[in-house]
Amino acid sequence: MSKFLASQWQVLTPYTPGEQPQDRAYIKLNTNEAPFAPAPEVIAAVSSSVMENLCLYPDPECGMLRDALASQHGLARGNVFVANGSDDILNFLFKAYAANGGKAYFPDVTYGFYKVFAALHGADWQEVPVRDNFTIDWRDYFGKDGLIVLANPNAPTGAYLAQSDIKRIVGGHPGSIVVVDEAYIDFGGASCVPLVRRYDNLVVVQTFSKSRAMAGARLGVAFAQEALIRDLELFKYVTNPYAINLMTMKAGLAAISAAPYYAAQCRAIARTREETAAQLTDKGFQVLPSMANFLFLSHPAVSGKDLYLKLKAQGILVRHFDAPRTRNHIRVTIGTDKQMAAFIEAAAAIAGGDDV
Amino acid sequence: MSKFLASQWQVLTPYTPGEQPQDRAYIKLNTNEAPFAPAPEVIAAVSSSVMENLCLYPDPECGMLRDALASQHGLARGNVFVANGSDDILNFLFKAYAANGGKAYFPDVTYGFYKVFAALHGADWQEVPVRDNFTIDWRDYFGKDGLIVLANPNAPTGAYLAQSDIKRIVGGHPGSIVVVDEAYIDFGGASCVPLVRRYDNLVVVQTFSKSRAMAGARLGVAFAQEALIRDLELFKYVTNPYAINLMTMKAGLAAISAAPYYAAQCRAIARTREETAAQLTDKGFQVLPSMANFLFLSHPAVSGKDLYLKLKAQGILVRHFDAPRTRNHIRVTIGTDKQMAAFIEAAAAIAGGDDV
Repeated sequence: MSKFLASQWQVLTPYTPGEQPQDRAYIKLNTNEAPFAPAPEVIAAVSSSVMENLCLYPDPECGMLRDALASQHGLARGNVFVANGSDDILNFLFKAYAANGGKAYFPDVTYGFYKVFAALHGADWQEVPVRDNFTIDWRDYFGKDGLIVLANPNAPTGAYLAQSDIKRIVGGHPGSIVVVDEAYIDFGGASCVPLVRRYDNLVVVQTFSKSRAMAGARLGVAFAQEALIRDLELFKYVTNPYAINLMTMKAGLAAISAAPYYAAQCRAIARTREETAAQLTDKGFQVLPSMANFLFLSHPAVSGKDLYLKLKAQGILVRHFDAPRTRNHIRVTIGTDKQMAAFIEAAAAIAGGDDV
Repeated sequence: MSKFLASQWQVLTPYTPGEQPQDRAYIKLNTNEAPFAPAPEVIAAVSSSVMENLCLYPDPECGMLRDALASQHGLARGNVFVANGSDDILNFLFKAYAANGGKAYFPDVTYGFYKVFAALHGADWQEVPVRDNFTIDWRDYFGKDGLIVLANPNAPTGAYLAQSDIKRIVGGHPGSIVVVDEAYIDFGGASCVPLVRRYDNLVVVQTFSKSRAMAGARLGVAFAQEALIRDLELFKYVTNPYAINLMTMKAGLAAISAAPYYAAQCRAIARTREETAAQLTDKGFQVLPSMANFLFLSHPAVSGKDLYLKLKAQGILVRHFDAPRTRNHIRVTIGTDKQMAAFIEAAAAIAGGDDV
């Protein structure tokens, strides 16, 4: 930090993205990316005529993209906000509804960025402990009035909250904004997007980074009633009106029209996830039930850190979260069947004491 | 706005981007875009193999891009920050160095977003009047300690401040950050980037939107000493570590290697600018000297608003800023020779009372 930086910012702790070491080729199962390429339509979407048009500003309204997303869900353009990745949306939500001492609640074990946003905006935040089995119980949020942010399925656990439970939380806090971060919803869960028609205090956030294999394109989406979308638009127009570039818009539009391709890929990922979980369980691992494209697992014979480090030494990257409740575990992204076979073999050998 | 939005944000006034009407084809001279396509290398840069890799997160460090920019200027990676358009950088700079009552100074006639950022972050800002001829005088900043932000050349006037004057401002405020926003520097001005070696309080901001014909790709750059770049990196890692998508990175890299193409295009724009200014002057317009890819002009026989509206009715879009000091003027982007000929003819006819 420089001597010029205002002292209030000197204390900020940045988010730590998953490592991306360049020293060798890895089986990369640490950042929940899709192991498949985007749909052929997406690959063809950024034509030379699109590139020639880069000299012009992109549509700041993102009208076509928002219309396409809205029509997927039977909503209107005014119910849809798009941003340069869903992190931008989460940032705006904390700023809009919890800044400068506003209350915010989220699980103690969840996406690490919520805490970063809460601190950045000076929220008065509280982490709500997940249960011993890492599930979220709606009762734990009862009476907590303020911005409530829930990843569903949750990360890094994969724990899934049924729509009926979400309804209890949203309906039970009519004066509070409830954010459901559905980054991983397409791997088996039921989306809460239809609920935005009914609840004026619900924001559902999604991303094209996971199920739509577009982490490299940066496209996040929020669905909500119009008044909330206008709040998000306000923050866009006081920070970066042209936040979404033309290439991402074109790729996003193509991905929306390729929905069947992605649905099939997600079903395959879910199948691989279940097979992987079964095999790991057979080998003595404790594997949490997951509705996401990753598994959260531990083994009584090896610490999470050792498992992570020994896998890395063998060229397999997983993610380890070195905090009290998560340090026995690792999170492994569901890759291809072949990648998972390599992972299972290596992990089992490490846990079995076979120090390859 | 929703009833949930914190009251402190209800008063924010968003930035107004240039209009992008879709009702008919316009000669679009209102948002300072390049009238030429990106270099052939850029058009070819987003290949199908790049698109296939969209499933992976982009490099959050943007290492290759920063290295290429650094080597253009004989600097190191640590002197370069890249963002999703230069607006993101300006936003971070106001947040880092002027938030919550910090002092900020910028001209009263300049890029409209500075005021928006200042208000968003609660800066104690002051607009420093430009001189009657719309030039900036370094003496007017003397003794003003706080974040100083200067567009050079300035927008919407095109007025240019010589490097010697910038040095006086930067050197005269060793305890203050001075930001030189060089969005339009490539159309004839001399960049202050080399000065960052000497001054630890200087940040030079550039963009790929204008001279590099990539407004649609969103790529902004800041050059400064390492401590200041670390400040900007901090804000990136507490908001959006993956702010730059893979396609923009690839296009940006290609544009850097195509420097001669862009230099030739910028020389042509400057030539067209001077010819346009001469012809407009001949026809009774008052045209400010400009070092940018636009002209700021007025005519004693017609208001800026009328000129803007009548041009629009004829299918020519220019920009009118309806504020006391600028409302007699319009700003016209330098397009192709043919576009400028159409503009000159139409503007002269309107000013001559020939109400076509």
